[in-house]
Amino acid sequence: MAGAVCVALSPGAFAAGTPSLATLSSHGGAQRIANTPATGKAKNVILFIGDGMGDSEITVARDYLYGPGGTLEGIDKIGQAGATNAKETGVGQYTTYSAGDGSGDRRQQITAVTDSAASGSAWATGTKTYNNAVSVDNSFNPQMNLIELAKAKGLATGNVTTAEIQDATPAVLESHSTQRSCYGPQGKTDGSSDDSAKRCDVAQLKQNGGIGSISEQLLDTRADVTLGGGNKYFNQTAQAGEYQGMTLKEQAKVRGYQYFEDPTQLNSLTAANQDSPVLGLFSSGNMPTQYNESTPYDYDTAVKMSLVGQKDGNKSLVTCTQNSEWLGNKGASLADMTDKAIDLLSSNKNGKENGYFLQVEGASIDKQDHNANACGQIGETDDLDKAIAAALKKVDLSDTLIIVTADHAHTSQIVSWPTYYGLTTPLRSADGSALYVAYATSSSPMDKGGSMSHTGTQLRIAASGPGASRVNGLTDQTDNFFTIAKTLGLASSTEEINALSSGAKVSVKDGVAQVTGFDGDAVLGYQLQDTETGTVLAASNDDTLVSGVRVDTGATTTIDFNGVKGFDPSTSTYTLTVTGKQSGTKVATEFGLTSNGASNVVVAPKTGDKAADNAKQAGLGGALVGALGKTGTRILGMVMVALALAVAGGLLAAWRRGLFARK
Amino acid sequence: MAGAVCVALSPGAFAAGTPSLATLSSHGGAQRIANTPATGKAKNVILFIGDGMGDSEITVARDYLYGPGGTLEGIDKIGQAGATNAKETGVGQYTTYSAGDGSGDRRQQITAVTDSAASGSAWATGTKTYNNAVSVDNSFNPQMNLIELAKAKGLATGNVTTAEIQDATPAVLESHSTQRSCYGPQGKTDGSSDDSAKRCDVAQLKQNGGIGSISEQLLDTRADVTLGGGNKYFNQTAQAGEYQGMTLKEQAKVRGYQYFEDPTQLNSLTAANQDSPVLGLFSSGNMPTQYNESTPYDYDTAVKMSLVGQKDGNKSLVTCTQNSEWLGNKGASLADMTDKAIDLLSSNKNGKENGYFLQVEGASIDKQDHNANACGQIGETDDLDKAIAAALKKVDLSDTLIIVTADHAHTSQIVSWPTYYGLTTPLRSADGSALYVAYATSSSPMDKGGSMSHTGTQLRIAASGPGASRVNGLTDQTDNFFTIAKTLGLASSTEEINALSSGAKVSVKDGVAQVTGFDGDAVLGYQLQDTETGTVLAASNDDTLVSGVRVDTGATTTIDFNGVKGFDPSTSTYTLTVTGKQSGTKVATEFGLTSNGASNVVVAPKTGDKAADNAKQAGLGGALVGALGKTGTRILGMVMVALALAVAGGLLAAWRRGLFARK
Repeated sequence: MAGAVCVALSPGAFAAGTPSLATLSSHGGAQRIANTPATGKAKNVILFIGDGMGDSEITVARDYLYGPGGTLEGIDKIGQAGATNAKETGVGQYTTYSAGDGSGDRRQQITAVTDSAASGSAWATGTKTYNNAVSVDNSFNPQMNLIELAKAKGLATGNVTTAEIQDATPAVLESHSTQRSCYGPQGKTDGSSDDSAKRCDVAQLKQNGGIGSISEQLLDTRADVTLGGGNKYFNQTAQAGEYQGMTLKEQAKVRGYQYFEDPTQLNSLTAANQDSPVLGLFSSGNMPTQYNESTPYDYDTAVKMSLVGQKDGNKSLVTCTQNSEWLGNKGASLADMTDKAIDLLSSNKNGKENGYFLQVEGASIDKQDHNANACGQIGETDDLDKAIAAALKKVDLSDTLIIVTADHAHTSQIVSWPTYYGLTTPLRSADGSALYVAYATSSSPMDKGGSMSHTGTQLRIAASGPGASRVNGLTDQTDNFFTIAKTLGLASSTEEINALSSGAKVSVKDGVAQVTGFDGDAVLGYQLQDTETGTVLAASNDDTLVSGVRVDTGATTTIDFNGVKGFDPSTSTYTLTVTGKQSGTKVATEFGLTSNGASNVVVAPKTGDKAADNAKQAGLGGALVGALGKTGTRILGMVMVALALAVAGGLLAAWRRGLFARK
Repeated sequence: MAGAVCVALSPGAFAAGTPSLATLSSHGGAQRIANTPATGKAKNVILFIGDGMGDSEITVARDYLYGPGGTLEGIDKIGQAGATNAKETGVGQYTTYSAGDGSGDRRQQITAVTDSAASGSAWATGTKTYNNAVSVDNSFNPQMNLIELAKAKGLATGNVTTAEIQDATPAVLESHSTQRSCYGPQGKTDGSSDDSAKRCDVAQLKQNGGIGSISEQLLDTRADVTLGGGNKYFNQTAQAGEYQGMTLKEQAKVRGYQYFEDPTQLNSLTAANQDSPVLGLFSSGNMPTQYNESTPYDYDTAVKMSLVGQKDGNKSLVTCTQNSEWLGNKGASLADMTDKAIDLLSSNKNGKENGYFLQVEGASIDKQDHNANACGQIGETDDLDKAIAAALKKVDLSDTLIIVTADHAHTSQIVSWPTYYGLTTPLRSADGSALYVAYATSSSPMDKGGSMSHTGTQLRIAASGPGASRVNGLTDQTDNFFTIAKTLGLASSTEEINALSSGAKVSVKDGVAQVTGFDGDAVLGYQLQDTETGTVLAASNDDTLVSGVRVDTGATTTIDFNGVKGFDPSTSTYTLTVTGKQSGTKVATEFGLTSNGASNVVVAPKTGDKAADNAKQAGLGGALVGALGKTGTRILGMVMVALALAVAGGLLAAWRRGLFARK
């Protein structure tokens, strides 16, 4: 590396055109095509996400499966004029960076390489956030996601993945969590132990007055169809709230879900709707991959193999083999799940009348890239490709928009010869030629537990159907949220989303608040006050935005005050104020001895991107008396964890110290 | 890497949809959108090539220069609706694989990773070929390139690069060479020595009756504007032909070129045309880069730096510095060259009346990627970006199509932390955040002369202006040829190109053949026969397609028979047959004692992709008598290398053994 005369560049030369973190991390602030209108109206949208499926991963799969001059069955058709009967197509690249790496104060620094949580949050909510964030922004404020917004408009919704259903990509549509590892009330365990303090922001746990773990919120979100892996986490037991003491599987059934784990039952499903949503979790963890693992070889070994390959027509090189454990053998490939989800959503009343939003994730492209497993990633890319092909056979592209993209690019590279520095798998392609796939981005050796790194390159997004043109050119991941929301006619700007709470109402019956119309909010704060004495009997914790009551998306959210110390509506009059923590909308009602059935007072949110500030303004000055376990439509129990202010303060301090330390 | 039950996949499962090498390597055979018509007619096309500029390289530059949320000045605007006043835009990905790696018989096997020669040939000619090929196909048959085809239609043409002008990317528009290293008549030297036997197919050298080296053919191609580096190779001396004994610089001047080497003279140029083309070669080799080299660090060093960076706001990380040797300091940045080329071409008579085709290459993105030089590649990407921005200021996108793409992707990856296996440069981005760029694809250590590898991923192509829609979706590099040719109205199919030779004519004056109208051919074969005795006095070697006379593109090609043993038109009558080696078109004339001024007989080529076969059929049965040095319009000398058939056979055998052995 030769030296040369150095002339330092003025940093100022770069300053122009460099957007600030504050701008980029506000809702919609990272959009590249904010002023581009929707070009069509779709009734339905299917979003296919290949986790980790950068252009390199697509090309690896095409090269291996069909030869470099071949064509993938689904991926290559989307965005391609003439390849389908879509009148509108679009294709481009999008940027995937995130607003911080989730490690302490570095959350406040742009990070060139995203994780699946920040990237998923970006398209699910339109807000650029930090790595580790599940549909919360850089200030931990929950951001309304596409399933919530679709439900607010009466659409059917679905969420399908080959990963654990709690994994970041599906999670961003099910929940709002400051940490992606907060899988269940007992953390990331099978229920026989509890590591929730390590996996979760403890303030988010129900026993501490929080909105609950990802799995619990999944049940609150209540998509019509949810299919994936990770059923072991549903063996965990709710620690507070209406379902305290029940496993999540029991809770699912009690709440009306068609819960099942046998993949062979998928085919027999006939209906899925809000009364009886489908929740199929077919594996304890991530689903098995389609192909068995291949080995990434060191330079010397890979070169020896390659030289032999040059002599024997590459017959000695690696050929992928099918994994007998793959659920596709039992009727639950990603294509099978996609096909069924489309059937269920399109025959559902809401789906028929209003359309549907469905996300389908091929999750293990990423996971096998991390493992330097070329066959694994190829098989998973093929699995997604076939799911897209299955969708193309089923949907009408005159009313359905299909988008295919990824959350981030990944490590695998197609090289011309085994690499000295990294590991290489020399494969024999469909056309008989050699295909060298190299891996080299881990920060520790693979034989000592290393994991290959995501990469930060822009990557492909493609779409066919009404609204597809909006993915043309260079966009950001957050633009994808607006593209989907706009073509479906969903609320997407902060103002529009806030306005979804303008019909908010609260009433109290038998000591239980019935809250409706907070469709622009994910979390409710509340304050119960004795009208005459001014004494606050109960209030949510407003120091953190994941404390409070999670909105039962699209349904009636209840807050049970029975059991609150000193609460007796037969002897006093009370004022209950409920605040949408995102929109800042505030409604109050007076009830009890002298004022049963009082009317609502709605405080509309201010406009602009100040929702978080509004929520704080609408808060109750930290008057923490108690944090209530969240309650559902059918009251089965109520938990109240009384926390002295001092104790709460201690917890909060611990949370602030520890939240991101153990990522 | 755990084992599992293996079920071998039937290779037949992959066979469907895997195109054959024979199909892919035929002219147009690798197109993905062959049936997509041109969507608009452009008067002018500017093709910007970032050599090695995959999506990762684009993102590295954007991240560093503007932050990940920023926008590149030129690259990001092309293909983006609304970013310019273009009514038509297009963007997509294209595949870049090649039809063989140029090493012995592996030329007959698809290669997932292309070099710049095969990829350049793909868009320059529409034919997928082997790595090392410069606008010749897999059978070594020269394929007509965009500059030749543009000249055939009367357009002005330009070729601009920051590399040596003989480097593959510019060379594919200047020449047809079976080996990319055949820079000049003395090979790849500064003229003080001769390694042409090692660098060239010896049959291609003029002294052996061939069409000559890349630099010599550049002068035959005669673009209106040619700007780049590599002037040291123009110190070489022609070994045969009309200019034997002259250096190429002298030859350029004798042939009417405005030849200059001082970059400060660029600005003073006022005209460039076929009478007086511009040839500016501003550096002895490749042009100096904009930024000084940065160092790629091993894991331990890079981690130490990164940890310090986390404490000091990344101030200790690498910031790029400007190279004082950069020619942009002397008025010859790529933007300056582009700006001047556009001025010259658009004010040129052909350009004004018929339009122009201009290729601009940012060459050293690739070269600095090979060197694991992050700052180098960033500066060169910026240089190209600014050249695009300069073009956008100058051209009218209602009549000019701008395309931006690359020849292949490259090694650099944006990672989240320094990599254990590879080398990492931790940079400080414009927004103050850390940007880790990793390199790990070389097949030997960098400190022992390793070079990072091209990669095989599909990459971005984008366009703005008439015809831009044709780059939408997934295309192949060869589609780019058709996109450009169709929007300019150039011949592009084999039939159309062959038809360009339908007006071929030959006449002989003073013993010198005057050949015109072979616009569909790059190489001419010939046979001079005594009409009465049937004796063949002179004939080109038809065993190889790079033997014969290179067509003086768009002008009169001459073949001087004076000095041929036994040739005396004052005493005998002769039949001269000239064959277009690509189209198969054959014209003959009789002249001499009894038949001066005989009429032409044109044998039209057969249709289809059989041009090569036709050319062979039209050949003269190996009746090798002599191979003539090529002659120009002004006869200065003539060389005849008499080769006995046995000697020629020996040379051919040696060539077959050695051609690809020393790549």
